[in-house]
This record gives sequence, structure tokens and C-alpha cells, in this order.
Amino acid sequence: MSLIVQKFGGSSVKDAKHIQNVAGIIAETYLRGNDVIVVLSAQGDTTDDLIAKAEEINPNSSKREMDMLLATGEQISVALCAMALQGMGLPCISLTAWQVGIHSTGVHSDARIKKINTERVRAELDQHRIVIVTGFQGIDRRGDVTTLGRGGSDTSAVALAAAFHADLCQIYTDVDGVYTTDPRIVPTARKMNEISYDEMLELASQGAQVLHNRSVELAKKFRVNMEVVSSLERKPGTKIKEVAKVEKTNIAGVAKDTSIAHISLVGLQHSPGVAFQVFALMSRKNINVDNILQSIGRDDTKDISFTIHQKDMEAAISILEENKESLKFDHIEADNKVGKVSIVGMGLMSNAGIAAKTFEALYEAGINIQMISTSEIRLSVILDEKDVNRAVKAIHDKFFDMD
Amino acid sequence: MSLIVQKFGGSSVKDAKHIQNVAGIIAETYLRGNDVIVVLSAQGDTTDDLIAKAEEINPNSSKREMDMLLATGEQISVALCAMALQGMGLPCISLTAWQVGIHSTGVHSDARIKKINTERVRAELDQHRIVIVTGFQGIDRRGDVTTLGRGGSDTSAVALAAAFHADLCQIYTDVDGVYTTDPRIVPTARKMNEISYDEMLELASQGAQVLHNRSVELAKKFRVNMEVVSSLERKPGTKIKEVAKVEKTNIAGVAKDTSIAHISLVGLQHSPGVAFQVFALMSRKNINVDNILQSIGRDDTKDISFTIHQKDMEAAISILEENKESLKFDHIEADNKVGKVSIVGMGLMSNAGIAAKTFEALYEAGINIQMISTSEIRLSVILDEKDVNRAVKAIHDKFFDMD
Repeated sequence: MSLIVQKFGGSSVKDAKHIQNVAGIIAETYLRGNDVIVVLSAQGDTTDDLIAKAEEINPNSSKREMDMLLATGEQISVALCAMALQGMGLPCISLTAWQVGIHSTGVHSDARIKKINTERVRAELDQHRIVIVTGFQGIDRRGDVTTLGRGGSDTSAVALAAAFHADLCQIYTDVDGVYTTDPRIVPTARKMNEISYDEMLELASQGAQVLHNRSVELAKKFRVNMEVVSSLERKPGTKIKEVAKVEKTNIAGVAKDTSIAHISLVGLQHSPGVAFQVFALMSRKNINVDNILQSIGRDDTKDISFTIHQKDMEAAISILEENKESLKFDHIEADNKVGKVSIVGMGLMSNAGIAAKTFEALYEAGINIQMISTSEIRLSVILDEKDVNRAVKAIHDKFFDMD
Repeated sequence: MSLIVQKFGGSSVKDAKHIQNVAGIIAETYLRGNDVIVVLSAQGDTTDDLIAKAEEINPNSSKREMDMLLATGEQISVALCAMALQGMGLPCISLTAWQVGIHSTGVHSDARIKKINTERVRAELDQHRIVIVTGFQGIDRRGDVTTLGRGGSDTSAVALAAAFHADLCQIYTDVDGVYTTDPRIVPTARKMNEISYDEMLELASQGAQVLHNRSVELAKKFRVNMEVVSSLERKPGTKIKEVAKVEKTNIAGVAKDTSIAHISLVGLQHSPGVAFQVFALMSRKNINVDNILQSIGRDDTKDISFTIHQKDMEAAISILEENKESLKFDHIEADNKVGKVSIVGMGLMSNAGIAAKTFEALYEAGINIQMISTSEIRLSVILDEKDVNRAVKAIHDKFFDMD
């Protein structure tokens, strides 16, 4: 007997028919003799509907009240799913994050899980109940409801899998696994049977929508075996584990992200620690900075460029302007019409040929590169947003058509 | 400075416009220097929509999961109301029943409040925040969500008023007070400025929709000053207090209830304690029994008749049939096409003329009486359902046209 955590996203529970389908998958797993913890997102458009209600009343509501509002979405899902399983005659119970005791930081709308109490869930599992838990949410030290931000339900699932030493954490979604790139852009994209945490992490953080990087980070940290699998078709998905089978090519996949903005501080006086200062300011506003690049400017000055999420552009510009005195720059250049294309693969950067081949593909497609950044297993280029899809196709073709 | 509890029902918060209106009433009260605790029901049709979602998936869901589902309704209301108050620049915070610590019994869908923790709410009031609490719900000993059944939000409001020794508990509704009878049936019905707990209790328990008797019982027990007032018009409502001003007539009002069913156990062998046995069986199924009547039947047998809520008729019949052996009756007669009309007033039963005048009114209207029951301040008659409205009008005219 194994303990399996199964997470279903909003599109998998969007109406009664889909909930019955999800209940069928859960029932099958339970009836094979497994303990099952289920994690659910809010139904389909529920979150958007709730946000619309809130905006109609006050477009500048506090994040604390927004979390209070949005948390109802998952509570509805878990109750309905429990009802569906009851209809099949299976013992089950739904629990909210506060009933489980999913303790988080107090950063509303973007909280981090700190600790999960195991007593209540364990007691229910011991009574052979299927336990259905609200994803995406936690409670902070005061007992206030928090939400975990983007990809929050995946993170809830992995955190529960870690807390209960689950044998497997299955992320059910509307695609059937992780692809070498977005199959809607590149029809020759291939589904991977396995991928390592590190590769998945880079793909996820570089824009592959299938999993959020926070959940993969957590899975890597606690060695949680994950599987991305379709809730619509019964076929094997993609396993994410410590060391995936080494495949022929060094490239695991190609990802894109068009939700970024590019900011440059131009004409910085030479001031040691200015990059750190920029980081610190962004962090104070909870803005994630990616791809920092420092370069020599004209005269004796330097430029610092970095990318952030589009939604944070206004906030970033305003805090930088506020600190113009101490940062000592000439002016800010900002552009949200950029995109990022990344290739990810084990040992990628130790194989010089790969970078060369990537640039060759972009050169042949006539695409301009604005910035380059790399990690041990990733190479990213920042491009004009309009070039992104062509770039993905060009790079994918270059590497995967050789097989 | 006073502490005021204000409760708004589902129709008062049904959409953004109504929530802004409610926020305006709260703001006015707060800005006059009062501490304010707000209790809200779910928005308009939310509860019905959630029930419909549940029924589509499983018409026989457990009450535990139904409570989990329905509790989201009030959570949505309190978050939205907090957002509206934030939009007016007022400090406020929404809290669910579990965040406050509204502890209840574990009877799902019909729980009773046992204890309210005061720490969290007190801390928020001390910071001059308006505190907005979900009505209708509690948590049981296990930390499971319960709902309080009919009139639950009124009960939440009175219980909070009692726990915090509030100076006033205002029940905002879509009528402007308590009337001598339903003004939709009897256009000459008058609004009362004051009414005593006991009179309100009898009116409420006899079908007057404006307040549920549980909330009035609680108000009487803890001497909570209540006021029923309109959320749509700014004018005085009806005050409910220990001793109301004695009015000229002995009759405070006329109420009706058409949601009842009438059950008779016919041909009972003489067996002491059979009435108790019937009570005990009904209580085991959580069925409230009203208006018990024991009468001499044919031969050596007796009949016992009583009324219950229509919804409980099937359950009542089946448990009585199951216990036919021990109860020793001949057969059951059941009828859900009955209604109850009650007149309520201080000292009513000590004035024999009132009963006589009531029966005279019904006689003149040609209406048959099936059963009669009385309390110190109430006289109820069970009638054919089709006669109920005519009976209300006949009795009201008889008493109030004399003024």
C-alpha cells in the first residue's frame, strides 16, 4: 500500500461532469488499496468571477481581504468533490488549509508554506478516508487566510507529499506531460517520459506553464517523486525525479516566457554594490528580479539591465525613481514588449557547442538577441516579444530534428 | 461610545450596489463614534446556487460536506463588505466563525452556538477596526464547519451581542419592523414601535418571518436589546426588549405558518408515557414537535396528534412505523396541507374574551378549526392550508379594527 497525493487544477474540476471524472480517478487509486490525499484548485472561472466581484466594489482592496475572498473557491471544490466520492459510496472528508493546519508566512497573495500539521489528516487516513484538501492556501500566525500565489496548488500538493512522505505526487492537468517545448508552437515537440528536478526547475522557471518552479523546488528539496499526468486521458505522463534517464540530446526542452519586462538603469556612476542595492529595493516590494546584466556604458558610467514580471514594471520604475539620488543613474529605460526563450538540459553549459548552435539557429532565423543569461543547465535569451515563437521553433528544430 | 452589532441578511448584500449601501450604514454608525461588529449572511441567491451545484453532483451528500460548501457564502459576503469599507477609507477586518472562535455543537446543518471566544474580535475593536463576521456558521469540537440552520445569522448576531455585552443588536432586513400581522395579507397591519421578548418569541415561533425564535430566545436569555430595522429606508424600526410599552390591545400580532404537517397516531392502546416516547423518537431524528394533543379515541383507545415541519414528515412517519410494535397504535394519519394561525399578546390567556373573539372571527368567516393549542401569551389554531390567509385577515380585522 502506498500513499499517493493527487492534485487537480481548476479546469479539471470546472463543472459537475469534470468533478465526477476526477472522483473516478481518485476512486480507482483508492480502490487499488492506496491511501489518497487529494489537493484541488478552485473550479474553472471561480477565481476570476470572485476577482470581478471584488473589483466592482473596490479595485484597491487589501490583499488580506482578497485572500479571504479567493480562499472560498477551493473550499467549494473540495466539498463538491467529497460529495461526488460519497455518491460512489467511498469514505472521504474535505479539509480546508486551516483545518489541516497548513501554516504559511503572512505575505498575503504570495505566502510560503512553513509547516504542515499532520494530526488531523493522519487521523482521517487511519480511518481509511480519502482526504481532500484545499490547494493554494494557508493560514498565517494570526490565523488569517493566505494564498500561495501562482502555482500555489501544485506547491500545496508537493508540500503535503513531503509532510506525509508520500510515495508519489501526481499533478493532473489538461496536458499529458512535459514536452520538449510548447506543442502549440512546435508541432514536432516530444513528450518526455522522465525529467530531472533541475531540468524541470529550469523549464518551469523559464516559462513552461505545466508546473510552477516553486513546487518543483520543494519536490527537489524533499525528494518527492512527481508525475505530470493528464486528467482526461489514461496514459503515462512525465515523471520528475532526482536523476532522470540520460537522453541522447543534452537539451531537455525549450521554454518561453512573454510576461516579462526589461528595465535598464543607464549611466550609473561607478558605485560598488549598486547591483545589490537594486536587488534590495526590488525585494522590499516583493518583485522578483531575473537575468541581471551589468555592462560598461559610455564615458566612465555603467548600465545595469534586468528582467522582471510585466505586472511589476510600474512598481519597479517608481521605486527606482524614488531612489535615483542614492543609486546615481542617469535615466531608466523600460520595455515590456520583450520575451525570453530558454533551452534547458543537463550539462548544457559544459558543452560549448550548444550555445553556439542556439545562436546559430537564431541568426539563421534573423532574430536579434537583446540579452543573454545562463545557469549551469540553462541558456536564456531576451528577444523582441514578436520574435519569441519563431525563436522557439528555430531552436527546437535545430536540436530535435537531428535525432 | 457604544458597541453595536449590526446584522444584514442575504437580500441586503445581494450585489455590489447593496453592499455599498450596507457599508454606508455601517460607516455612519462607526463615524458616530461607536464600536461596530457586523454580521452578514450569504449574498442573495448564493446559498441556493451552491445547493444546486451540490444536488447536481450528489442529492444525498452528507450534511458535514454541505456545511463545508455553504459556509463559503458568508465568507464571500464578509470579504466583499470589508472591501467596500476599505474603499471608504475605514479600518476594518473580516473574520470567519473559526477565526473568531464561534464554537458550536456538532449537529451539521442545525448546530447551536456553545461559546464565543472574545480575544480576536476584542483585539481588532481595540485597534478601532470595524469587525465583520460570517453569520450562520460555527465550528465544532473537531474543527469542522457547522451551520446554524434557519435564522442562523440572526442567532450569530445576538450571540455576539451577548458575548461582547453590546448596547444594541440591530437586525437589518427588507421590512421596516415587526407588524401586527403580514402586511401583504392584511393591508391594515400596523408596525409596532416596541415589543417584548416573549411576544416576539411567540410571533417568531408561530411563523412571523422577520426574526427566528432562536435569536429572540437568546436575546431574552442574555437581555440583549434588539431592533428590527430596514436596510433600505432610514427610519425607526421595532425595538425588542424586556418590557415593552403596554399597548391598548392585548394582542401584539397575528402570525401564520404554512410549512407544517399534522400527524396523528390513531387507536393507541392505553400505555402510560406514550407521548414521551413519541417525543423521544422525534428528538432522536432532530425533528421538532409542536402542538401535541392527546384525545380520547373510540373504544378504549386514544389518539395523539402533533404538528411538525413539513420537511420532516417522511422521516417522522418512517420512524413511527418502525416503532409501531412498542407504541401500539392502529395507524398513522398525516396531512401536510395544513397551516397554523397564532395570535400573540401579553396576558392573552388570562383574558377569556380573547379566545372567544378569535373563534368568533373564524366562525364568521366559515373556517373550520382542526386543532387548538395555547401558551400563556399565545393561542394557535391548526386549519386547512387554504384557509390560512383568510383566517389571518379575519382575526386581525376583529382585533385591530376596533382601535
